[in-house]
Amino acid sequence: MSVNSKIYEGKAKILYSTEDPEVLLADFKDDATAFNAQKRGSILGKGTINCSISAKLFQELSTQGIKTHFIDSPKPNQMRVKAVKIVPLEVVVRNIAAGSLCQQTGLPLGTVLKQPLVEFYYKSDELGDPLLTSDRLRLLELATAEQVETITHLALQINEFLRGFWERCGITLVDFKLEFGVDSQQQLLLADEISPDTCRLWDQAENDPNRRVMDKDRFRRDLGNVENAYQEVLQRVLKAVESKK
Amino acid sequence: MSVNSKIYEGKAKILYSTEDPEVLLADFKDDATAFNAQKRGSILGKGTINCSISAKLFQELSTQGIKTHFIDSPKPNQMRVKAVKIVPLEVVVRNIAAGSLCQQTGLPLGTVLKQPLVEFYYKSDELGDPLLTSDRLRLLELATAEQVETITHLALQINEFLRGFWERCGITLVDFKLEFGVDSQQQLLLADEISPDTCRLWDQAENDPNRRVMDKDRFRRDLGNVENAYQEVLQRVLKAVESKK
Repeated sequence: MSVNSKIYEGKAKILYSTEDPEVLLADFKDDATAFNAQKRGSILGKGTINCSISAKLFQELSTQGIKTHFIDSPKPNQMRVKAVKIVPLEVVVRNIAAGSLCQQTGLPLGTVLKQPLVEFYYKSDELGDPLLTSDRLRLLELATAEQVETITHLALQINEFLRGFWERCGITLVDFKLEFGVDSQQQLLLADEISPDTCRLWDQAENDPNRRVMDKDRFRRDLGNVENAYQEVLQRVLKAVESKK
Repeated sequence: MSVNSKIYEGKAKILYSTEDPEVLLADFKDDATAFNAQKRGSILGKGTINCSISAKLFQELSTQGIKTHFIDSPKPNQMRVKAVKIVPLEVVVRNIAAGSLCQQTGLPLGTVLKQPLVEFYYKSDELGDPLLTSDRLRLLELATAEQVETITHLALQINEFLRGFWERCGITLVDFKLEFGVDSQQQLLLADEISPDTCRLWDQAENDPNRRVMDKDRFRRDLGNVENAYQEVLQRVLKAVESKK
């Protein structure tokens, strides 16, 4: 593999090789997609915003003992990450009912769950990222039983930390999606990104169900002011990180 | 409630009250629906065939100690059943991958599962009968944990018996859907029906993936010869029951 060659292009990021085979460069794009890429668009500045937010959150999580793929951020929209083999699961943690959980269960939007829900979806564009029961997860052998157990534990631990972090930003963490990967030493690392693209974030200063939305739902549901919302999230993250020092 | 008044009309059956409040009369219709009633039609003689097959299978299961809602069959397309409150779950037992399991996992049609899969779907036309994880099942409180455990155990026991029974008919039991209900004594009873409408049944004498189909997939997938297939299933069931005597 030559240096700086594109090795993967996803919906929101491009991965390039580097001189070190164990390190990749992630380039965050402004491209936005929703509903399994049936809706496409662009959010000005999203690449830089999501990369910056993710970098801060990965660094914060690292201080909590959570191992992530993050190394450093050479440019505002670029991140050097440890090369991992992604576990083909979208791990969704839910604190409040929203999105497909409401559509598939009839629970009203905003229902506070008694305890956080950790759900697994098969990361497959072709199949439309279907929900997996634990039996189907086992049947498809997408991860070992030990990995599933570790991921569930990590997801809940990450949720506990992030809830508090977003709280300090005046934001309610409704739900979010994580991805994990395995590095060359067979270590399980938190990968992908943590950003308004992958979290549902509600502004605690707003009660209106549309105005409070600070995440990709603004794009999905054509609520407008997408760039402003993303930018506002970044500013609050930077302030929360700064105020702790 | 007056005697003989219609108390419920479903897609395949009408339930009438009787002089005994603990007994209902189920009238099996020829109406056929698929894909959450988006496809509608009629299968000549289906009411009589499905009622007759279900009656025989409920009687057979009863000899195995499985409690069902079946009392007797006063007419070929009518069944007297114990009045139950239906648990709003569609319990699907799968021996071989077919239908939505293939669509949602990418498993090829016909993949033999190492062990039977018991899956729960939320019986809700409005929501499109969505698949439930065990967490969602708990969250929605559609059944108690004890009921879920008992139902899972019963479903596997019923599967074991039915596999053998259909085998004696020269038919492979691919998968099937069960419903359970609770009677006035809080007893959990197997309810609804067991028929080519609720089972995937493959003729062991045929290898062709379309020709072997002896169930509602002939209607769903416009394979033709629907009435003949249903009639053939009934004849084999009657013969299998008779030959045991």
